[in-house]
Amino acid sequence: MSIIVQKYGGTSVGSVQRIEHVANRIIATAASGKKVVVVVSAMGKTTDELVGLASEITDEPRKREMDMLLATGEQVTIALLAMALHKRGQEATSLTGWQAGMITESHHGNARILEVERARMDELLDKVHVVIVAGFQGIDQQGEIMTLGRGGSDTSAVAIAAALKAERCEIYTDVTGVFTTDPRVVKQARKLQTISYDEMLEMANLGASVLHPRAVEFAKNYEIPLLVASSMVDEPGTMIEEEGTMEQNLLVRGIAFENDVTKVTVHGLPNEIHTLPTLFAHLSAAGINVDIIIQNQTDSGMAISFSITQSSLKETLARLEELKGELSFQGIDYEEELAKVSIVGSGMVSNPGVAAKMFEILAANDIAIKMVSTSEIKVSAVIDEELMVLAVEMLHEQFKLHEEEPAVAVKV
Amino acid sequence: MSIIVQKYGGTSVGSVQRIEHVANRIIATAASGKKVVVVVSAMGKTTDELVGLASEITDEPRKREMDMLLATGEQVTIALLAMALHKRGQEATSLTGWQAGMITESHHGNARILEVERARMDELLDKVHVVIVAGFQGIDQQGEIMTLGRGGSDTSAVAIAAALKAERCEIYTDVTGVFTTDPRVVKQARKLQTISYDEMLEMANLGASVLHPRAVEFAKNYEIPLLVASSMVDEPGTMIEEEGTMEQNLLVRGIAFENDVTKVTVHGLPNEIHTLPTLFAHLSAAGINVDIIIQNQTDSGMAISFSITQSSLKETLARLEELKGELSFQGIDYEEELAKVSIVGSGMVSNPGVAAKMFEILAANDIAIKMVSTSEIKVSAVIDEELMVLAVEMLHEQFKLHEEEPAVAVKV
Repeated sequence: MSIIVQKYGGTSVGSVQRIEHVANRIIATAASGKKVVVVVSAMGKTTDELVGLASEITDEPRKREMDMLLATGEQVTIALLAMALHKRGQEATSLTGWQAGMITESHHGNARILEVERARMDELLDKVHVVIVAGFQGIDQQGEIMTLGRGGSDTSAVAIAAALKAERCEIYTDVTGVFTTDPRVVKQARKLQTISYDEMLEMANLGASVLHPRAVEFAKNYEIPLLVASSMVDEPGTMIEEEGTMEQNLLVRGIAFENDVTKVTVHGLPNEIHTLPTLFAHLSAAGINVDIIIQNQTDSGMAISFSITQSSLKETLARLEELKGELSFQGIDYEEELAKVSIVGSGMVSNPGVAAKMFEILAANDIAIKMVSTSEIKVSAVIDEELMVLAVEMLHEQFKLHEEEPAVAVKV
Repeated sequence: MSIIVQKYGGTSVGSVQRIEHVANRIIATAASGKKVVVVVSAMGKTTDELVGLASEITDEPRKREMDMLLATGEQVTIALLAMALHKRGQEATSLTGWQAGMITESHHGNARILEVERARMDELLDKVHVVIVAGFQGIDQQGEIMTLGRGGSDTSAVAIAAALKAERCEIYTDVTGVFTTDPRVVKQARKLQTISYDEMLEMANLGASVLHPRAVEFAKNYEIPLLVASSMVDEPGTMIEEEGTMEQNLLVRGIAFENDVTKVTVHGLPNEIHTLPTLFAHLSAAGINVDIIIQNQTDSGMAISFSITQSSLKETLARLEELKGELSFQGIDYEEELAKVSIVGSGMVSNPGVAAKMFEILAANDIAIKMVSTSEIKVSAVIDEELMVLAVEMLHEQFKLHEEEPAVAVKV
């Protein structure tokens, strides 16, 4: 009897009515002859309410006590969901993170899962077939309650699926799947039937907020097929799994984009081996996240351009000034109101023409490229912010992302 | 460095403001050179809200899932109280029931504490001096979350005090102490400076709802002095401890009373050895709580009278009818709208005249006694309900309970 892990997010369990609806879905899965592990988040606004209580007391609660406080949110949901299943005649047992054996590192508010001690879940799955686990939480080896940080419940679900060698991990959320690009911006955006782990990772890292990258990485490492779907509507979601060979015909799978990008250029740097590490170690120590980096050698020394978010510009300029003595550069330029547009697709690794086609499409629409960055499955271009939506629409159309993907293109 | 255990009930921690107030009290205790273990209940209406959520789903939640749900209430309080202490510069660490080592029997909703594994608390008390423990909860040996049932947080506090050999256990509640009788009914009621465990047990069992009998029994068994006081006002409470020798001068320490008493009499029962056990085993199996029992032999067989609560009369009569074949009694009488008035005092064990004086006082006020029950430190009389308040007032006055007790009467 194979095991399905289902994760329902805060909106999916946001009220007693929604919990009852989720109970019905779980029963349908159990009735199809599967053992089911259900991972749930705190009900809708519960976490915000708990944070609100804490903030009435102090602006700087210790993370340990925040974990103690917030971990109650999921515990309420698991108990209520178990009750809803019992009322419908479905056996089920709820488990907190520590009861389910979710062992984490000792890092309050942002712990990673180290291990899932599966014995208790195994025993219960044999007996009652449905086990409900509080997501987003675990304990460290000292018995301290830890929360997992952002995307935590997704990671809980994938880690459990990996530990139990589940057939599949289903992530139910408030979107119906993974789209070729953000459907709120581009009307032609189409829901993908499938996407590979690597493509999903690029999409997630590039700002498509469907799934946390940590959960995707976990699923990739343990080869757990991930289904992303909505618990509200009854339509197929997107399956994230290892890509099939035929799929490489599809060069571009999705387009990600983000605004508020700023490009900073430092001119006339000394052409020495320590210049780059000195510069970026100093920015990193200040917590500044640098994205694309371009290095250029000229007669007057080295020029370095890099992109940051708009909000870190002031801090970046201040930190660079501190280096003026050590690196004796000539000057700093910066350009604001930029955006980054990225095409993602594992097919492009064997098709070097994809990047060229992207540049052509942008040029044909008078969109100037300020910076470029490429990886095996992604090309990113920094352009003017006001041209971002146009660029995404043109790329979406020219790479034919609105067209249905062939059903044969995917290993099932 | 000696240890004080303080317990704050739901009203005392009913809001963020009250939690801040409690934090100040704890700091004052710690500043006096004590280690402090603080046991807290869920905030004010939290438990009711959680019960409300469950009842939206089902009328018959399983007790295991109710425990899972309700245990979150205290966990919220301990985190918030820890934050309030940290804000004030007081080190403190919160612990759930299971983290604090509260090991219980496996009896959801009404578990008793089997053991307190003190190691974690000891370690923290050495380090931070203040430990906050979620009351009302623990885990059994299988790692299942249990709640302790009514009066649970009081029992948590006393059990911890016993395990840690604390100097004292302070129970902060919404009354200022233990009174000679209910001050809402009798204006002359006076707060007692001290009362013995046995007297408090009788008072609690007779309906004085200040402390749960289980907590008092625990304190008596481990000789933990218990202070009952209010967290809202700054006035001395009542100390419950082993009685001093001089105290026995005070014959009567308090008067308890309850209404809604019904007396049932079964006439013409067979004068056989199995009659009584058959009768009361049958009532007990139906969950009927019988209080006073009087047996009387007459020419026409045996008559048995007993008192029950008004609400169980219907069930009692139905159960008795079932026994008619087996016991072939002649008939059943019952008398409703009765009350039980009890005088309590450990002094009366060596003063047989106390019961006689109680009967005299009642007779002098034309109050007829329907049933009597005595123990070593208590005399109870069943009377007409409409005469209850008069009886309590007269007994209070005649036994001089309104007079100040001599301060020397108590071992300190």
